[in-house]
Amino acid sequence: MNPEPVLRSLALTMPLAAAAALITVLYLVRWLSLKDRGNDRMQKVSGAISKGADAYLKRQYKTVTFFFAAMFVILALASFYSKMSMFTPFAFVTGGVFSGLAGYVGMKTATSSNVRTAQAASRSLEEGLKVAFSSGSVMGLTVVGLALMHISLWYFTLDWYYTEILPSASQAAKFAQMASVLLTSSMGASSMALFARVGGGIFTKAADVGADLVGKVEKNIPEDDARNPAVIADNVGDNVGDVAGMGADLYESYVGSIIAASALGASAGYGLSGTILPFMIASFGVIASIIGGFFVRTGGKSGQAALLGALRRGTNAAALMSTVGSFFIVRYLLGADGTRMFFALFSGLAAGVLIGHATEIYTSSSYKATKDVSRSSLTGTATVIISGLSSGMRSTGLPVLIISGAIMASYYIAGGKLEPTKGLFAVSLAAVGMLSTLGITLATDAYGPVADNAGGIAQMAGMSHYVRERTDELDSLGNTTAATGKGFAIGSAALTALALIANYNDQIKGFTLNLNLMTPETMSGVFLGAMLPFFFSAMTMDSVARAAGSIVDEVRRQFKEIPGIMEGSADPDYATCVDICTASAQKEMIMPSLLAILAPIVTGIVLGPNGLGGMLVGAMVSGFLLAIMMSNAGGTWDNAKKYIEEGNFGGTGSDAHKAGIVGDTVGDPLKDTSGPSINILIKLMTMVAIVFTPVIVSLSLIK
Amino acid sequence: MNPEPVLRSLALTMPLAAAAALITVLYLVRWLSLKDRGNDRMQKVSGAISKGADAYLKRQYKTVTFFFAAMFVILALASFYSKMSMFTPFAFVTGGVFSGLAGYVGMKTATSSNVRTAQAASRSLEEGLKVAFSSGSVMGLTVVGLALMHISLWYFTLDWYYTEILPSASQAAKFAQMASVLLTSSMGASSMALFARVGGGIFTKAADVGADLVGKVEKNIPEDDARNPAVIADNVGDNVGDVAGMGADLYESYVGSIIAASALGASAGYGLSGTILPFMIASFGVIASIIGGFFVRTGGKSGQAALLGALRRGTNAAALMSTVGSFFIVRYLLGADGTRMFFALFSGLAAGVLIGHATEIYTSSSYKATKDVSRSSLTGTATVIISGLSSGMRSTGLPVLIISGAIMASYYIAGGKLEPTKGLFAVSLAAVGMLSTLGITLATDAYGPVADNAGGIAQMAGMSHYVRERTDELDSLGNTTAATGKGFAIGSAALTALALIANYNDQIKGFTLNLNLMTPETMSGVFLGAMLPFFFSAMTMDSVARAAGSIVDEVRRQFKEIPGIMEGSADPDYATCVDICTASAQKEMIMPSLLAILAPIVTGIVLGPNGLGGMLVGAMVSGFLLAIMMSNAGGTWDNAKKYIEEGNFGGTGSDAHKAGIVGDTVGDPLKDTSGPSINILIKLMTMVAIVFTPVIVSLSLIK
Repeated sequence: MNPEPVLRSLALTMPLAAAAALITVLYLVRWLSLKDRGNDRMQKVSGAISKGADAYLKRQYKTVTFFFAAMFVILALASFYSKMSMFTPFAFVTGGVFSGLAGYVGMKTATSSNVRTAQAASRSLEEGLKVAFSSGSVMGLTVVGLALMHISLWYFTLDWYYTEILPSASQAAKFAQMASVLLTSSMGASSMALFARVGGGIFTKAADVGADLVGKVEKNIPEDDARNPAVIADNVGDNVGDVAGMGADLYESYVGSIIAASALGASAGYGLSGTILPFMIASFGVIASIIGGFFVRTGGKSGQAALLGALRRGTNAAALMSTVGSFFIVRYLLGADGTRMFFALFSGLAAGVLIGHATEIYTSSSYKATKDVSRSSLTGTATVIISGLSSGMRSTGLPVLIISGAIMASYYIAGGKLEPTKGLFAVSLAAVGMLSTLGITLATDAYGPVADNAGGIAQMAGMSHYVRERTDELDSLGNTTAATGKGFAIGSAALTALALIANYNDQIKGFTLNLNLMTPETMSGVFLGAMLPFFFSAMTMDSVARAAGSIVDEVRRQFKEIPGIMEGSADPDYATCVDICTASAQKEMIMPSLLAILAPIVTGIVLGPNGLGGMLVGAMVSGFLLAIMMSNAGGTWDNAKKYIEEGNFGGTGSDAHKAGIVGDTVGDPLKDTSGPSINILIKLMTMVAIVFTPVIVSLSLIK
Repeated sequence: MNPEPVLRSLALTMPLAAAAALITVLYLVRWLSLKDRGNDRMQKVSGAISKGADAYLKRQYKTVTFFFAAMFVILALASFYSKMSMFTPFAFVTGGVFSGLAGYVGMKTATSSNVRTAQAASRSLEEGLKVAFSSGSVMGLTVVGLALMHISLWYFTLDWYYTEILPSASQAAKFAQMASVLLTSSMGASSMALFARVGGGIFTKAADVGADLVGKVEKNIPEDDARNPAVIADNVGDNVGDVAGMGADLYESYVGSIIAASALGASAGYGLSGTILPFMIASFGVIASIIGGFFVRTGGKSGQAALLGALRRGTNAAALMSTVGSFFIVRYLLGADGTRMFFALFSGLAAGVLIGHATEIYTSSSYKATKDVSRSSLTGTATVIISGLSSGMRSTGLPVLIISGAIMASYYIAGGKLEPTKGLFAVSLAAVGMLSTLGITLATDAYGPVADNAGGIAQMAGMSHYVRERTDELDSLGNTTAATGKGFAIGSAALTALALIANYNDQIKGFTLNLNLMTPETMSGVFLGAMLPFFFSAMTMDSVARAAGSIVDEVRRQFKEIPGIMEGSADPDYATCVDICTASAQKEMIMPSLLAILAPIVTGIVLGPNGLGGMLVGAMVSGFLLAIMMSNAGGTWDNAKKYIEEGNFGGTGSDAHKAGIVGDTVGDPLKDTSGPSINILIKLMTMVAIVFTPVIVSLSLIK
């Protein structure tokens, strides 16, 4: 349709958008650095958190380096002995490096902004919001900026290679190799994300549960009290888990969805136009996100509604701009088919918003579900647990209807009935649509832990109570955006995984028939795949329990052996708790990560490519359900407890409150470790399957 | 291969085996009726239980009658306006009646044997075992006897109809109509089973949780204390839930697997031989079960190991006989293909045994998993809950490997690679093999609640402590067999559902392509189906919570308003608690049951036959996982608590024990209401899909 040179130059929008994002990041970082860091005591606390987080990431990157080196060798051998591109091992490594870098920048900013947010909040609520949100924006824009820069890097390198060095390659071969290299880079990002999510998730919940079990329950000292030896570890955890982990997760969904769509665009018969369409949508989304950031203002008003309104104004503005821009982009690139594909993009965007709302309905204490869970605390702990589990299970209903609706709508509107490849391309565009404004949606999400940390610093540094009240207000909003963000993360993970599975299906088509459920290997594969998220969650939950156990022992030891802690006359040894969490998280993250990488390879070899396809579908579906159930059950327990603390059903200190605390503690590993890790599990397994398809096909026992 | 007249006469083995089973039942009932019913006080307690159970079943059958009348009309209209056979509505009703009858007989025997077991246990442990096991055998043999009689009834009626009245029908049309009518009868049984499982499950856990929350926790009186107003309701619950519910459930799996295999046998190209093969396997299994019963003896030895050994001897003897017999039957009927099909049968039998073992590993306190959960009670309630959930999730691993292994093995050994229909027939034979000795495996399972009730009677009637110790020993064994039985029930449900899905696939083949996962409707169907067990479980858990809430209120009221209950000078009003449970269970069972029946019809209409196929697979897979997770988590919490009561980790009354009790209470609705009901949900939805295929296809929006 459009002449090739024009299209090739249009791909340049991607590095330009990336540059715009990263320049904005630089500007924001500079702006933040000029903000007041408060008094010595605040800086001391903040310094301890920052030091702990640095130490953790350093250790994590060291562990991960071994893994990446090993994978580099394996992929190098595979590319040598099979039809895999020679760029594959390098792409894997750069994928990991960029994903890690995104997490690192986000976390560095968060740990240096927490104290500034606390100080700003001492002036006004709006000031506090501005600083915390700017820190979140650094994270959001770094993720999308680095992602687009990384895709550009490989896209233009490969484009140059196939134009200048190997011009003899056919267009189809060129597309296939490019897709495979880009997917490998995505797999690298995914591996890094899994380590970050699992390790960070274990760290944060071990510290949180350990600090609460001894501090709150045994010693009766409040949350974030400086006398608790695990308090710094707890605050470090917010950064390594919620910031670095979440960033790596969404980096990976973002990259995965763009690349999957790009590959499907080529095979849907749109040629280069199909390939660069996702790039341009993403690029425009970045610009929309940057502009949307300017709309985040409270207008001087205070209160939860005003704060939420401010954030919503920003995300809505960005979504609107992105929608309008997308329309013109698809129309320009795909001509008459463009309008249909636009609806696919739009259905993804709408599904993201709707899943966020559905999450709120089941986790916010403004709604009946969480109030019911809260009320059940009146009849004791058992009923709180049962009603929370039940609410989590029930909450899977709406997201499934929304995702299924988005799949059906995008496929059929795009004309998938007659041309299935176009239908699948449309489904992958829905994922791109959902993630197009990630720059700003991630900002609203990453802002939460900064506010949470600011509250911790205000408490530990003994700032006046109105500062703590303001940071609490900011934090409480952060809980709402975190819940929405989790729904968004899992929704986008499901659509991205589906797009990736479609890619896998494309890959194996040459070898086998199709994913017919009535073949025993596909059916067994579905069974196996559906089981994996359950097994994986059990592993990560046990990891948290073990790590929390060592923290409990250590905190008890310090209270016993260091005299004067309770009186405040002696400092506890914070660093040891941080060390224990770091070491446990590193040790515990290995097995679940290996499961994710080995399961598809072993399944592929034993059950063949169709069995592996079934496994990927089974894992995606059951993982989606389990992740929603665990995140929402955890969220509802958390807010049910807070609802009691607001004075309902007996208030703080009542028996109902004690029951509520147990519910919250049970929910912690579910919502912050196991649940979110599943997102990455299902995507990573699919990418492993795609990258290793040639190997799996040649080794598989069933053809 | 074999001449038709010979084969037709061989089908007569089925009514003969049914007669043998029912004659044995009559003999056992007579033998039981001669046993001593103990003193007046015991009879009074037993009478109250029996009266409550009768009242419940009467009310339940009344409610259900409306449903069956409505379905009769719907099916009559459908058979009038579509190609459905005119026998369909009648088959649906008789299916329900026979299933209900099986539950009724089993429960009547159980409620009249509990007091006899208590009395016999006052003489010796072996006597107690004999009485309780005989009562269980009545249940087991009634289920298989009535099932085979019911299949015979329709098989010979239809055979006569197509030979004498409509001889012009083609062989294929005849088989199709027979299969459809028999499957409808199975759907009737399934509907009745769902009501029994859900209603009974809600009744038993509402009474149990309600009795415990006020009696044990608030009033500090022991389990089964006559002063607790809900104690009779609790004992009634054991009968209506664990006996009648379990009986109806397995009746339905048994009938479903035989009929599904029979239908697939015809379409696998084995003609009449394939049709009657499952009948003969089942018939021989009944005889093996009757003989196996004679091997159940303790040989005068006492202790858990001797008791378990006695039961194992019986089930193993029956399994061995059934295996040997099956070999000759398949060889005779299928000739050279027979040996291959024999391995399919055998793999099912082996899978049943292995799943039972896997369940034990994760729920018995002899193994590490449950000990770990028990130990986690030392750090409080939250860790007990987390570790129990995690153990339940982890326990899904082995059963999935076993079931997948059985599916793969039976399909490929039978030559499914070249002839898929033979492969699917083999998978359905695996289900038949697993259930072939149901007569005795169900007996070992149904014996548990009788022993449990006997213990309750011994306590309430103030029998001497050594009687209670013996009934406790019997009951504890019952917990082990119940866990194994639950694994068996869910394993057979999965295989039966799979065989039924294969039937469904056969049915829709004429209309559509196939269940390719890469079509959006199949994919959306899988998402939707996988969600349904979560949603259904949430509904039933909430039902239990609501019903238990009304019991708590009532028990509290009685303690307050009836003076002298605590001193034992006044009798509490047991009947009101029974009434409340009955009324709640009836009300609460409606919505989940409607979900099961409407979901496939609505999905079929909206997503078309392929979407519905995906939904059935999704529900089967996620239902299998969720049922195992919930049953095993509940089982491990139950036994972890008992392990503490045996004196570990502080023993009875310690903080650890209190945490253990909360775990047990959380597990109650999971393991006895929601988990087992899922078994029926997944089978019933598939049968609804099969029966309504013509309607769904004509109304569906996507073809």
